[in-house]
Amino acid sequence: MRAGLRFLKGHGTENDFVLLPDLDGQLDLSPELVRRVCDRRAGLGADGVLRVVPSRLAPEAARDADEAPFFMDYRNADGSAAEMCGNGIRVYARYLVAAGLCPPGHLRLATRGGIKEVDLEDGPGPVSVDMGPAAVGDPVDIDGVAATFVDMGNPHAVVPVGSVSALGQLRPARTDLNVEYVEDLGPTAIAMRVHERGVGETRSCGTGACAAVVATSLRIGAPRDTAFDVAVPGGKLVVTWRADGHVVLCGPAVLLAEGVLDASWLGA
Amino acid sequence: MRAGLRFLKGHGTENDFVLLPDLDGQLDLSPELVRRVCDRRAGLGADGVLRVVPSRLAPEAARDADEAPFFMDYRNADGSAAEMCGNGIRVYARYLVAAGLCPPGHLRLATRGGIKEVDLEDGPGPVSVDMGPAAVGDPVDIDGVAATFVDMGNPHAVVPVGSVSALGQLRPARTDLNVEYVEDLGPTAIAMRVHERGVGETRSCGTGACAAVVATSLRIGAPRDTAFDVAVPGGKLVVTWRADGHVVLCGPAVLLAEGVLDASWLGA
Repeated sequence: MRAGLRFLKGHGTENDFVLLPDLDGQLDLSPELVRRVCDRRAGLGADGVLRVVPSRLAPEAARDADEAPFFMDYRNADGSAAEMCGNGIRVYARYLVAAGLCPPGHLRLATRGGIKEVDLEDGPGPVSVDMGPAAVGDPVDIDGVAATFVDMGNPHAVVPVGSVSALGQLRPARTDLNVEYVEDLGPTAIAMRVHERGVGETRSCGTGACAAVVATSLRIGAPRDTAFDVAVPGGKLVVTWRADGHVVLCGPAVLLAEGVLDASWLGA
Repeated sequence: MRAGLRFLKGHGTENDFVLLPDLDGQLDLSPELVRRVCDRRAGLGADGVLRVVPSRLAPEAARDADEAPFFMDYRNADGSAAEMCGNGIRVYARYLVAAGLCPPGHLRLATRGGIKEVDLEDGPGPVSVDMGPAAVGDPVDIDGVAATFVDMGNPHAVVPVGSVSALGQLRPARTDLNVEYVEDLGPTAIAMRVHERGVGETRSCGTGACAAVVATSLRIGAPRDTAFDVAVPGGKLVVTWRADGHVVLCGPAVLLAEGVLDASWLGA
């Protein structure tokens, strides 16, 4: 093998990513390359790619470079660019600190969805990110149930159910938005399964967990600033709907491997 | 990250593998570790693990060490040990040559299924492996069709169809053997889709491609030593049923990445 491109592999509640450090801003990350890297049989396999690039070297983020020195260039597995990813940015922040590129504590990170605030300590502990304000809309009908509509930058419908494990295969009547099925496990704990728009059921969804907690808080009358445990198939998240209206997502961020992609394979 | 275990990722017609070089024979490859590594969300993701160990250091292969200096310790993604894997052994041989552990040309490799003969040149060309003799049995009924039964060490039923692309989702009535659906593309070319026992449809199956060519040769009266092109969803294989009764499988073997697994992740 000839060393081509350096990579890391990580995940947050089993939403998984290939990180591509590009500290010189020299990487031409084509949609074709993203698709090849994310291919789960012929490539490394991931839900998406996180290119790690200094904001001053990224046209999308140069204006934010003073406040947020690093830009999260997030691409979906199909090669398209995305604004934000709540699980991805936590893995991204873990890398910046683990690699010594940022000190632990409070980080401001540039994304296509604006500057995001992230908090983490050094080591393997949880990473939290301010996902911004939630906007609650008119209820929407999902399978005959009045679901709570929550806009977290992307649209969600939250459906309370008696048991998420009893649901079987998720087949919501609406597939033009993300649908969260939520089971109450206690006064500040829920279980969630999510059917993502354009994807199907996934192991976890950061904005979905936020929407689920907003809808649950409204339904049961929980006060703001309550930390909810959210059990998803891929692990456990903690979500807090703050008094200022912002939703904070907190959970694990794991880096499990690093290495290099073969130069011949990249060039093929 | 702290460097833990070294790995490579490769595939043969999109049957994908994590290789774990263990030249000192010191790796305790537990079923739990195999499952974690092969997990496609929380791990690296693969159909199986290929531990690369000198035969003299492996109890299963020590008796073969003079003839076959390396042992392919193959594990399925569920952690169980397997005898052989036609796509896996080609990727394994590619690694031995690429890493300078064996010279290119003719290799004899120890497996739980005995010593296997492999041929490859240096560089990215195809790798061929003698998959041993085929045994043809009594026809079996698959969905009302008399399918050819072929034993390649594991059981196969081969069903000729007009078009593999027109089949939709494969749901063979028999799931206690591997079922290959085969379409004739020309006098020495077939397309194949395979439903593997205990797995479902896969992108490729080495023994399945061999069984498909044996059954097709008998059905159309092709002479022995005819090289058949076999198009599978994951790529292209060439299979030859030799005059001596052995079946030779030839096709690509790709190494696309190498790196290290994080020590903390391994220890968790």
